[in-house]
Amino acid sequence: MVNYPHQVRKKISRTNSKFSRQQVDFANRGMSFEAAINDSNTYYLAHGHAVIHKKPTPVQIVKVDYPRRSRAKIVEAYFRQASTTDYSGVYQGHYIDFEAKETRQKTSMPMKNFHSHQIEHMDQVLQQRGICFVLLHFSTLKETYLLPASALIDFYRVENGKKSMPIDYIRKHGFQIEMGGYPSLPYLEVVEKNLLGGDTLEKTKP
Amino acid sequence: MVNYPHQVRKKISRTNSKFSRQQVDFANRGMSFEAAINDSNTYYLAHGHAVIHKKPTPVQIVKVDYPRRSRAKIVEAYFRQASTTDYSGVYQGHYIDFEAKETRQKTSMPMKNFHSHQIEHMDQVLQQRGICFVLLHFSTLKETYLLPASALIDFYRVENGKKSMPIDYIRKHGFQIEMGGYPSLPYLEVVEKNLLGGDTLEKTKP
Repeated sequence: MVNYPHQVRKKISRTNSKFSRQQVDFANRGMSFEAAINDSNTYYLAHGHAVIHKKPTPVQIVKVDYPRRSRAKIVEAYFRQASTTDYSGVYQGHYIDFEAKETRQKTSMPMKNFHSHQIEHMDQVLQQRGICFVLLHFSTLKETYLLPASALIDFYRVENGKKSMPIDYIRKHGFQIEMGGYPSLPYLEVVEKNLLGGDTLEKTKP
Repeated sequence: MVNYPHQVRKKISRTNSKFSRQQVDFANRGMSFEAAINDSNTYYLAHGHAVIHKKPTPVQIVKVDYPRRSRAKIVEAYFRQASTTDYSGVYQGHYIDFEAKETRQKTSMPMKNFHSHQIEHMDQVLQQRGICFVLLHFSTLKETYLLPASALIDFYRVENGKKSMPIDYIRKHGFQIEMGGYPSLPYLEVVEKNLLGGDTLEKTKP
């Protein structure tokens, strides 16, 4: 699956200040959802909190030219559907695995972007005691949630991925990610507090 | 970094039997080193032992055409150097991360295929308590070793990756992988016994 992140226009807000925390999300900084995740991963890596990377886009290479005196040039290739999730890595010995999706809708998250292979992969990861979840961004609402993979899988299986997931379900089973500080999207803090039940990350903070 | 696996020609051996264990490696089955790793990962996944995948080849996409009535076609792209390793996943809660290299040489493994970014990545993974190693295949000798990343990093730092790594060093600090059974390359058994000190995998076997 290939993400074409919704370009969020940079908004210039006169009301931004450290007191209006709700208003200051990554979109206000001119950042897309995907960029905010990458930015957070860079932050975690630089601070020694975690090693989490986005996997390369899967591409089926059909034809490669080798022009003289220059590097190999791929001249025919196609996007392949990903069989796993987009992000994975390690946090304090724990295997971390997640997918990110965004929508402009206000009341639900379309499920059509989750493929059955990805759902199966998440299930396999949980069976191996990996930490697995999805990050769901509602761009119009400016709200981002971390939903454990178990809750996603449960919902997916009810109608085999054909029904949109109501935001009420996400609010009930997931955790909202507070924004406005650094990193842009502090999802590991949510993992630590709600999925691992500890405060390792807090302790490593300066 | 892009691997162009050395094609191992299928050898037909009249001496193959379950008693001549040393002779029966994946090359005898017409399998390349990379194929043997993928085959083992498929085996581990199917048996519920681990979820380990090869990451897609990193490609920098420059131009995409959208022909009518057909899917997007990439018409200009280039191979990018990988900043991480080729394989990662989860095994019984443990984060697993490794790179695979092969050589036809008999006495040492060239270090030029390990990039400084990869060495740095391995170091970061170890700091996060991930399980990290390299699989080294000597195709002429028909021997494959698992070398812990710590030993690779130590050697790399002595001469900044400029010196080949003698097979004696690998034999001293690594573990030979016994071949001839299933999966083709039972590297997780080596991880379990020597890096984790347990026998979880043995216990899950039928």
